[in-house]
Amino acid sequence: MDSIFDSTDSVRNANPLKYACEFVYSSPFRLERGGCLSEVRITYETYGELNERKDNAVLICHAISGDSHVAAHDLDDGSGWWEIMVGSGKPIDTDKYFVICPNFLGGCRGTTGPNSINPDTGNRYGLDFPEVTIGDIVEADCLLVDSLGITRLLSVVGGSLGGVVTLEWATRFPDRVLSVIPLATAAHMTSQALAFDIVARNAIQSDPNYLGGRYHDNGVIPASGLAIARMLGHITYLSREAMMKKFDSTRNQARKIETAFETKFSVGSYLAYQGGKFVERFDANSYVVLTTAIDNFDLGSTPLELQRSLKCSMCRWLILSFTTDWLFPSFLSRELVGALLATDKRVSYCDIPSQCGHDGFLLPDEFELYGEMIRSFLNNVSFEILYGGVPLIDRPDRIDYEQILDLIPRGAKVLDLGCGKGGLLARLRQRGGCRVQGIEIKEKYVLQCIDRGLDVVQADLNEGLKFFSDQQFDFVVLSKTLQTVRDVEFVLDEMLRVGVRGIVSFPNLGFHEHRQRLMKDGRAPNLEAGTPKEWYNTSNVRFLTLADFEDFCNKKGINVHHCIAIDTKQQKQINENPNENADEVILVLSK
Amino acid sequence: MDSIFDSTDSVRNANPLKYACEFVYSSPFRLERGGCLSEVRITYETYGELNERKDNAVLICHAISGDSHVAAHDLDDGSGWWEIMVGSGKPIDTDKYFVICPNFLGGCRGTTGPNSINPDTGNRYGLDFPEVTIGDIVEADCLLVDSLGITRLLSVVGGSLGGVVTLEWATRFPDRVLSVIPLATAAHMTSQALAFDIVARNAIQSDPNYLGGRYHDNGVIPASGLAIARMLGHITYLSREAMMKKFDSTRNQARKIETAFETKFSVGSYLAYQGGKFVERFDANSYVVLTTAIDNFDLGSTPLELQRSLKCSMCRWLILSFTTDWLFPSFLSRELVGALLATDKRVSYCDIPSQCGHDGFLLPDEFELYGEMIRSFLNNVSFEILYGGVPLIDRPDRIDYEQILDLIPRGAKVLDLGCGKGGLLARLRQRGGCRVQGIEIKEKYVLQCIDRGLDVVQADLNEGLKFFSDQQFDFVVLSKTLQTVRDVEFVLDEMLRVGVRGIVSFPNLGFHEHRQRLMKDGRAPNLEAGTPKEWYNTSNVRFLTLADFEDFCNKKGINVHHCIAIDTKQQKQINENPNENADEVILVLSK
Repeated sequence: MDSIFDSTDSVRNANPLKYACEFVYSSPFRLERGGCLSEVRITYETYGELNERKDNAVLICHAISGDSHVAAHDLDDGSGWWEIMVGSGKPIDTDKYFVICPNFLGGCRGTTGPNSINPDTGNRYGLDFPEVTIGDIVEADCLLVDSLGITRLLSVVGGSLGGVVTLEWATRFPDRVLSVIPLATAAHMTSQALAFDIVARNAIQSDPNYLGGRYHDNGVIPASGLAIARMLGHITYLSREAMMKKFDSTRNQARKIETAFETKFSVGSYLAYQGGKFVERFDANSYVVLTTAIDNFDLGSTPLELQRSLKCSMCRWLILSFTTDWLFPSFLSRELVGALLATDKRVSYCDIPSQCGHDGFLLPDEFELYGEMIRSFLNNVSFEILYGGVPLIDRPDRIDYEQILDLIPRGAKVLDLGCGKGGLLARLRQRGGCRVQGIEIKEKYVLQCIDRGLDVVQADLNEGLKFFSDQQFDFVVLSKTLQTVRDVEFVLDEMLRVGVRGIVSFPNLGFHEHRQRLMKDGRAPNLEAGTPKEWYNTSNVRFLTLADFEDFCNKKGINVHHCIAIDTKQQKQINENPNENADEVILVLSK
Repeated sequence: MDSIFDSTDSVRNANPLKYACEFVYSSPFRLERGGCLSEVRITYETYGELNERKDNAVLICHAISGDSHVAAHDLDDGSGWWEIMVGSGKPIDTDKYFVICPNFLGGCRGTTGPNSINPDTGNRYGLDFPEVTIGDIVEADCLLVDSLGITRLLSVVGGSLGGVVTLEWATRFPDRVLSVIPLATAAHMTSQALAFDIVARNAIQSDPNYLGGRYHDNGVIPASGLAIARMLGHITYLSREAMMKKFDSTRNQARKIETAFETKFSVGSYLAYQGGKFVERFDANSYVVLTTAIDNFDLGSTPLELQRSLKCSMCRWLILSFTTDWLFPSFLSRELVGALLATDKRVSYCDIPSQCGHDGFLLPDEFELYGEMIRSFLNNVSFEILYGGVPLIDRPDRIDYEQILDLIPRGAKVLDLGCGKGGLLARLRQRGGCRVQGIEIKEKYVLQCIDRGLDVVQADLNEGLKFFSDQQFDFVVLSKTLQTVRDVEFVLDEMLRVGVRGIVSFPNLGFHEHRQRLMKDGRAPNLEAGTPKEWYNTSNVRFLTLADFEDFCNKKGINVHHCIAIDTKQQKQINENPNENADEVILVLSK
């Protein structure tokens, strides 16, 4: 088949599930919105081995059209929907972890769903299948986890619908999960995403073959409605950029496919093909049930509602979004991160730069970044339960870090703005007693922080610290970052709002060498001398002397509690005339 | 009806067209892709009066579901789809202009379309209606324009599908249009937008009542397919932000509507309502015909193809896109602008900041900006034909402008990067002989330039000048802008690529007052002294002396042909030791 027909279809060929197990819960299973199933069967697959302490289990949650077959079990087995992520030596390493992947309640790949036989009647449930919520899915999977003798999962991981399920785990069973990794997901759908699901269900349910959900009894299926629903799905899974890359060069080329749908453009042929394939392997009622479940999921849309929903969670979080995902846009992940930060949860977050859209979490394109983040995060969560602590770090090297460490008492809650690779935070944590959180804009530094076991959230300081409440931290540090920030007033205001004390360090333009360079040489002072940075390519955009900053604090009503001036070349503290003799200054501030 | 049901439905109530006229072309009308209509009837409306010279006619082109009723004719008349834009004293001022608005060929509001009676058979065309292109639509409308005795249209204006029609006018009949104003449109659809149209047509054509297009003969209509198509349309017309604003606060509230579709969420009720209303007033075959016409429209997707298509155009252009329009995203307008700039067309462009999505061009939200741009542009186009020239401008006030004027010979082709309100360009044009083009990032300045009759394109210099070819201009000016640019090397490279000569001016950090301020006062020099700007809120991000810049040119192989040093306070030129005595410098460069 032509390469334009490749897709990230979660289950490429709807493999026969030859390694699948079945868990049967034969007592009545009551659903959140009313209704009761007299038994629940869950099809699931496992990989790796559960250790003796039973503390190495990772639960994987599939997306809407996925199933229990997350990866191949051996060379003869068909490939799974997340081969890149799960297996020996892979980020979710089956040599270390015991991986469980169930098909969801309401699905159509083995687990009890609308297409199953109702044991009470001997007929398919069809439209009699009760409304399922994300809570019901998690309750059912928890019964499975119980049956395996697992008290606490090391992690629950999933993207899209699977991501929503991870959120439900974290809040419904807070003491049964050590960590969650929601990818490309949200605490609630946007109205736009909701609208697409609604149109998809309208297409299915207005197909004359749908027959109010009783199609199987009549030997037909609502094929064109389900195909149209799937076409819509495919549009929303891809970014506009990915679609351009895939179809633009062959725009007007129709492909030969057996279909009643339009094949006129290459993208038309693709949609017709994907729609047709989907009908062969997925059930229309399951599509209605599962999309309705995710559409109804809502942890709250205001920051306060979200905080209330997430407050009970006790686990560590790694949240990942994908920049071009417009079905679950990054701002929704940021809302989630904001609510977790505001309630002092341990959270790391990164918006993975990607051209792939919502499908990004299934694709190899940015795997080096997000795969490694998941690997590092799981490593550190395991390390914590094994050793109750954190890995040791390298030796201190920056005199300003040493000075800042001395300013922060043990037991303080510290936020580091622009934390880089986490050098300061790792030292603070190693010294013990501090609860530390980092904010950093560069993805590669975010990864390094995660690798060090730090909690770090990717964010742009220029957009403020709105997720934090007033005085949430004892200390907020802005180390050698002030001079790279455009909106100095805003960033300092935010810093002194969320911290009882702010610690700022920056290079001092007033240093005698800088003065001489302008006065005598007629050249702009170079605050990064010794690096390849010059006036035209420095990342510094603000140039100030210690005296300028003191004037500024005075004017803006900022208290300066302490000022440490350093000559970094001589590695010594300056007491005499710091505005002329120090090339770097550290100030402790409050408002 | 509830406010959530408001929409920008181009034709709110499908008014009876009581002021509509009909133009009948009774000769055979041959279509581009084969097929022939034995007559064409065009329903159109006119507003205002055609002047004696017949040079004040503005043709307005409607969007997909629009019609000839662009505005009310009197107080008793139903409102039209662009009331804010067209009328006495409005931007398209019917006191000054003769406005013509036809319903398109293939439509269903009076003009010949698939729903019309085929005079050869006495039956509706239905599926026998030949495939219509955008070219056919313009050919038909040109017959109407001929019939009104109009040789050259002052302007052709339209958004969305209507915008595509303006592009076709500009390239198909270059000598018959003085200007075009395409809004929220593109030279070709994205694959994503194409995909939505395809799914919409699949929904219509797989509705069992479609009957291969012969539904009217059978007394049915493909109501659910057409409604689903319309629901999809509505999703794509709104931005995600607009949908959030409209639906998020009432997310779970269903409305009572007579419908077979899902009404579960507020957005679901809205879609069901809009889908149902549309079926009452629009024809499914027309929807298929018109969407196919726009989907097939393609002026080329590479810059070279686009340039080839647009080369023949002779008119002035005002192109407007809307920042949150994801159906016709702004980058497509920029591609169009790029191709026009590369072929030396007279073009102005602005990306209107808007939360409204594709519908932005129909809504009042940003009307103050885009409405005024259209008003100013039309004013200036009229002025040019009346007086063959441009309005006079205010007196010069900046000494650096005077100096730069002296450096540029008459007849030169000049590009001004960061042209602001167009002060320098207006002076150059007033002096005569220069072909001038501006680039500016701020919308309000873009409007002021347009108001001055200048051609100005909104763009961010940091993204380069990729639309221009090598050495396209004699002079490229970067006046007091270099110091606000982050990537100095890139911007200078681009400048010296597209210009034979570059003229750069910037404030000189080496000026003695600046030196003293750092040396003696220990304060950062303030290059904007006398303004409210200080080190922490200046728009300057690069600080350099004349000597630094000369070193830079030397290192990068840039030739400095000329250097003018100024003391702006004393309004005099400096010859002695410029790096110390001048506060501003102007250099002529080449590479």
